[in-house]
Amino acid sequence: MSKMEEIQKICLNRGIIFPTAEIYSNISGFYDYGPLGTSIKRKLIEYWREFFVKSEDNIYEIDGCIVLPEKVFEASGHLKSFVDPIAQCKKCKSIIRADDLIFEKTGKFVEGKSPKELTEIIQQNKIKCPTCGGELSDVKMFNLMLKTEISPVGGKTAYLRPETAQNIFTSFPRIFRATRAKLPFGIAQIGHSFRNEISPRHFIVRVREFNQTEIEMFYDPEHQECPKFDKVKKNKIIIVTREAQKKESEPIKITIEDAVKKKIIPNQWMAYLMAKEFEFYKSLGIPEEALRFRHMLPEETPHYSGGNIDLEIKFDFGWKETIGNAYRTDHDLKNHMKLSGKDMTVLTDDGRKVMPHVVEPSFGVERTLMGVFLHCFVEDKQRGWNWFKFPAKIAPYTAAVFPLVNKDKIPEKAEEVYETLKKCFDVFYDDGGSIGRRYARADEIGTLFSVTIDYDSLDKKTCTIRDRDTTKQIIVKIDELVSVLNKLVNGEIEFEKAGKLKQ
Amino acid sequence: MSKMEEIQKICLNRGIIFPTAEIYSNISGFYDYGPLGTSIKRKLIEYWREFFVKSEDNIYEIDGCIVLPEKVFEASGHLKSFVDPIAQCKKCKSIIRADDLIFEKTGKFVEGKSPKELTEIIQQNKIKCPTCGGELSDVKMFNLMLKTEISPVGGKTAYLRPETAQNIFTSFPRIFRATRAKLPFGIAQIGHSFRNEISPRHFIVRVREFNQTEIEMFYDPEHQECPKFDKVKKNKIIIVTREAQKKESEPIKITIEDAVKKKIIPNQWMAYLMAKEFEFYKSLGIPEEALRFRHMLPEETPHYSGGNIDLEIKFDFGWKETIGNAYRTDHDLKNHMKLSGKDMTVLTDDGRKVMPHVVEPSFGVERTLMGVFLHCFVEDKQRGWNWFKFPAKIAPYTAAVFPLVNKDKIPEKAEEVYETLKKCFDVFYDDGGSIGRRYARADEIGTLFSVTIDYDSLDKKTCTIRDRDTTKQIIVKIDELVSVLNKLVNGEIEFEKAGKLKQ
Repeated sequence: MSKMEEIQKICLNRGIIFPTAEIYSNISGFYDYGPLGTSIKRKLIEYWREFFVKSEDNIYEIDGCIVLPEKVFEASGHLKSFVDPIAQCKKCKSIIRADDLIFEKTGKFVEGKSPKELTEIIQQNKIKCPTCGGELSDVKMFNLMLKTEISPVGGKTAYLRPETAQNIFTSFPRIFRATRAKLPFGIAQIGHSFRNEISPRHFIVRVREFNQTEIEMFYDPEHQECPKFDKVKKNKIIIVTREAQKKESEPIKITIEDAVKKKIIPNQWMAYLMAKEFEFYKSLGIPEEALRFRHMLPEETPHYSGGNIDLEIKFDFGWKETIGNAYRTDHDLKNHMKLSGKDMTVLTDDGRKVMPHVVEPSFGVERTLMGVFLHCFVEDKQRGWNWFKFPAKIAPYTAAVFPLVNKDKIPEKAEEVYETLKKCFDVFYDDGGSIGRRYARADEIGTLFSVTIDYDSLDKKTCTIRDRDTTKQIIVKIDELVSVLNKLVNGEIEFEKAGKLKQ
Repeated sequence: MSKMEEIQKICLNRGIIFPTAEIYSNISGFYDYGPLGTSIKRKLIEYWREFFVKSEDNIYEIDGCIVLPEKVFEASGHLKSFVDPIAQCKKCKSIIRADDLIFEKTGKFVEGKSPKELTEIIQQNKIKCPTCGGELSDVKMFNLMLKTEISPVGGKTAYLRPETAQNIFTSFPRIFRATRAKLPFGIAQIGHSFRNEISPRHFIVRVREFNQTEIEMFYDPEHQECPKFDKVKKNKIIIVTREAQKKESEPIKITIEDAVKKKIIPNQWMAYLMAKEFEFYKSLGIPEEALRFRHMLPEETPHYSGGNIDLEIKFDFGWKETIGNAYRTDHDLKNHMKLSGKDMTVLTDDGRKVMPHVVEPSFGVERTLMGVFLHCFVEDKQRGWNWFKFPAKIAPYTAAVFPLVNKDKIPEKAEEVYETLKKCFDVFYDDGGSIGRRYARADEIGTLFSVTIDYDSLDKKTCTIRDRDTTKQIIVKIDELVSVLNKLVNGEIEFEKAGKLKQ
């Protein structure tokens, strides 16, 4: 079993993540999150908000609707261009991405070709269904947006947004005015997006309903410098350049400053955000070896783009984009202005009327979560059980409370401790089975500390704290437990120095 | 201008809440939330989570998909019954709720009648289009769920959920097992729901895309008692009984205990949750006079229900449901079991196989928010500006920081204070215009405290805190500012005693 399959099994058994409406033959690409999954996902999002929004003074968060009218996607280009070429097998009826299949069979990139041209390539190369060898239908374009109708009669066509970004662009003029902002100025949004993927796969990596955390950083194209650039310019990132991709050579490790100088990164704002992304992922427990930026090839980059760079995580099945960085220039605002007739420009301090340029980092929440699950997963033969080394920021529980035995007033004391801890931390109580079994259950879901209440808790008013990462144990006064746990969580004290080490 | 219109105007001007994709002629019933609206809504949800989920030991939160397959709604009954009877005017083409129109014209409840019967009633009573007097079409049933198609070819029909509840029922067996739960046991969910309302109205009260916070409290029908009932049984609530509705008499104020005894509330679990709802709303600043429960009439209650009681808030336009409490019995689990063939029963400690019964409180987040906006809105002739008396839990900002003048090192000091406060609270910095104008702007969005940095801040290291609610001012040491604000926010100290009162 691969590591991802192992994790998926734990997610099912512990009710962390499981197929939506699984009691019915479900539609693939949809997953529900149980109590632990919900907690981890929510903490990940909250950590992102702290790291990327609250830490900045000029980034504002909005929360817009999922269902958006057709006009929005006419302006953004999704109606026309958010399509995949598909063909259906006439025999087994399976649906195939025509461009992927052609690339696989011929080695040719066919991005931008028409359905007619793709059909011809398939016929000329005698490409058949990869599943059953059957003949393939003509290629047609399939729009990945989920469509719906609003209002009862003569309904208006609307779509479930395929990216959160468009709410930001359509509300830009109002937000800019209401916040009395000046450029540079960012709008962030956290929320659901939907894509009617042809073949959902890799557990929560490619799904049809997912969450994004996005920022659109608007700036004056005549003043492209990022005021905070100096803070990160010496940070090093790993990047696969276009050149390296052509030559199939190694990625390079380079400072943010040099990457801008060498025009690998198109501008300071994107560079600043990329530096933060790299730090963010590392702080989530993903090692540097499993992280790389990749400069998108010209054929992968939209025509209006000033440069696209993905952050990729290494999964079992290969490298996969989890953050997309796009220099969208003034493409979106310009097109919304054209279609709506509303002025989307802003007035600068020096009296110029400017259409802001925009840099967008767009995170896939579920993909990031999968990266975290994978790289925090510890296959531990010594302990005899596998566990998640989640960082404190996103661990679903700070502590578990165990009564050593279920008699002699120990459970009463343990419940008292549990009630006290509950006011300050996410904790759970477990009195089922041996202590070893309870350690295993706590570790398995990444619980940072296990607190055991024993006979000394009654006499000496102490308890034992066990550290998830080292399995070492210390004895501390129950009175000091909250304060000790606080210091441990915030990294203000080393575990072994936080109490009397138990031998 | 009505109070709600006044509030809507502020929401637009301050970018708090505004129509989605407003740069286009928008589709009604969709609203986006700007920075302040997002913050308030998020805090309201977080407060709900604390109050209803985290404070309980046996309620678990999940997060399921919005898009659900058709089978789910076949089992739940939404496919068949989540319909409104509509007629269209043949002349002006407007769509009318047939049952509402018949009630308005004849005073008759026609719930449950077929489209054919409704058409006949319209014809017999010569009911015409209320807009233009034109003739009405035959009545037909319109399903309020938003429909979509999944997967590219021969797509599967799916719906955007009209309530968050169904994810809870379909995942119940897995969550129950994974949490090693015993009855009574609750599952909560916070998330989006969608209803294709025929006539969205009253700003964010009746919209097509909204959020719900729901709990399904599962219990053994042979052990209906709620262990925490004693904690709330003396609490008093206001309720309009069925009898009072018939006689058009006043609502009664009654203890939770008596309401259960008199069978106004069907069971202890619903009563316990209702007591909490009443407290929750009052803590949000909605006065008791603007709150009432209403026992739904038999014709408003689904056939399977063991009793439905709404919590209503008094709006400008009348009383409106903001929480629905439903005793759904075993209706949902039973039907999902029937349609899926999967066992939805649980084994009790005494070895019985039981289909749990369920009580559901279902909150409309946006409706609640509108109630809070309305009842926290202070029309203040004395100050010369209107403002929101938001409770600390949901105020978008704890404090504003103002430099008295923009010279003499005052801005530098103010920025320093701002940076310190930012680490602990939501704060903003404002140096625009007179102090009076800045107070007005801070009040208008419900900022709890305004901190002014003046010449004394440089010499004596003090600053002035102004209280939003009283406009009184105290002088405190800058060093103690964080600690004083903390105490004020947590209600641990009275404002006038927190520093030296400024005369």
